[in-house]
Amino acid sequence: MTLRPMLFACALAVLAPPAAAAAPYRSMQQILDASPASDWREPAPENVLYLELDAGRVVIELAPGFAPQHVANIRTLARAGFWDGTSIYRVQDNFVAQFGDADAEDAAKAKDLGAAERKLPAEFERGIQGLAFDVLPDADGWAPQVGFADGFAAGRDAAAGKAWMAHCYGVVGAGRNLDADSSIGAELYVVIGQSPRQLDRNITQVGRVIQGIELLSALRRGPEPMGFYADPAQRTPIRAVRLASEVPPQERTRLQLLRTDTQTFRDMVEARRNRRDDFYKRPAGHIDLCNVPLPVRVAGS
Amino acid sequence: MTLRPMLFACALAVLAPPAAAAAPYRSMQQILDASPASDWREPAPENVLYLELDAGRVVIELAPGFAPQHVANIRTLARAGFWDGTSIYRVQDNFVAQFGDADAEDAAKAKDLGAAERKLPAEFERGIQGLAFDVLPDADGWAPQVGFADGFAAGRDAAAGKAWMAHCYGVVGAGRNLDADSSIGAELYVVIGQSPRQLDRNITQVGRVIQGIELLSALRRGPEPMGFYADPAQRTPIRAVRLASEVPPQERTRLQLLRTDTQTFRDMVEARRNRRDDFYKRPAGHIDLCNVPLPVRVAGS
Repeated sequence: MTLRPMLFACALAVLAPPAAAAAPYRSMQQILDASPASDWREPAPENVLYLELDAGRVVIELAPGFAPQHVANIRTLARAGFWDGTSIYRVQDNFVAQFGDADAEDAAKAKDLGAAERKLPAEFERGIQGLAFDVLPDADGWAPQVGFADGFAAGRDAAAGKAWMAHCYGVVGAGRNLDADSSIGAELYVVIGQSPRQLDRNITQVGRVIQGIELLSALRRGPEPMGFYADPAQRTPIRAVRLASEVPPQERTRLQLLRTDTQTFRDMVEARRNRRDDFYKRPAGHIDLCNVPLPVRVAGS
Repeated sequence: MTLRPMLFACALAVLAPPAAAAAPYRSMQQILDASPASDWREPAPENVLYLELDAGRVVIELAPGFAPQHVANIRTLARAGFWDGTSIYRVQDNFVAQFGDADAEDAAKAKDLGAAERKLPAEFERGIQGLAFDVLPDADGWAPQVGFADGFAAGRDAAAGKAWMAHCYGVVGAGRNLDADSSIGAELYVVIGQSPRQLDRNITQVGRVIQGIELLSALRRGPEPMGFYADPAQRTPIRAVRLASEVPPQERTRLQLLRTDTQTFRDMVEARRNRRDDFYKRPAGHIDLCNVPLPVRVAGS
């Protein structure tokens, strides 16, 4: 049989009609390839966290603009090596992978938090003042307005004067107990499934994975309720969690992210909203916030 | 430290205010536990497909109401053992796991399709006549109307007289090439990430995984572009794909699914749309189609 075992054909540029006004369709990759260097930014090393596993490195960009106190605490914990030797102790299918100190509940066994804060206020949302917000015009059921701020998918309520990070795939949040202010950034989770947007404005989000998510999303799911592993041997060991700024420059993973205030980004979103390659027979005419790619590339590539 | 390493507290019923008219909040589990047996259905064995892996069984409910010709072909292929000894040859992070004949492109090596059809029409959508549709009132950017039909998340356009399955987590679709009518159901994919709703009405969907999705979603991602494995040794072997109706009754996995035309289902959706347990500080007031759970339980439980 000749059916090619692929879902997606490579995006091919559609030939422009002879006298058409419409620009020829360009795929996301073509749009990115044509972007000027100034469309890309490299995160400051103090805003980049490396989660070092036996299988490799997961790179997280922190969000101090949304959760300044949690991010400050995470920096303190990373500098002290708090997570070194801890584990990924929960992986729940279509939801989250969570890591930190599996014994945090047991006062006799919990790791010392050192100089880190033991109590922080909830940072579920922030004021909209001073926050550049690149609006995504597409309808969203979860928020009055959605878009991108500081490189993160976000919601905004202008009437309330608030903005917040959206729980999209790869987002990193601070696990908490019942009280809103019960997170300190020591126990972190990463979204590995359908975006659980119901958590927006209910949990402090601290960043997102920008490389290596597949080292978390492909982990064996925990057999206990909510994806926990009762057997410590089944947990995934964490070698270390370090700030990029604490790592020698030659050992850093240098990544660049597409700025969301660029024409390149707007063109890319439109190319995804209305796919006009040979594969798609009916362009959607819409894109959801969490379906918008946030492109990452290796610096120098 | 006392921070419990969990994201979600158990959903606790909120005490009703002394003279309140509002009913006390019930969690999804409490609502399901109180459901009458008549709220549940057991799929007909000829509509259930078992994907047998070394790690266990993945159970798929087929959707003959949406893709009758593809489902008929899948039944033919399963009865002939077409997939036995094939593999999962593609796993792309945040997108799909795909299985079938990895050599389908190579005429010299492709497996014989036997009595199966080599050509089928696209079944991207169907007429709305005769299709019971339980509307989800929440806004959706991808479709004029969304809801549930035959137990599947679906979109509907009353003006166009069409309905279609929605690409939610766990949905099974028929991989195709560029031509709309290039799928026959031999190469199948399962959604394992953020719902790629842009594929709605662009691919024939044939069912959804109702048990065992974690055997697919936790597979190592393929190293090649689009998640393919060039090295056959890295692919996940498929022992067999069988219709439940072809399996001795005592070897069947008997599952029940909650009917979507029940008060139990409506109550459950509302309990997820507005979570009023002790964990949530701000109920969303909204739920997206692909965030609605479609409960499955073991028959007799």
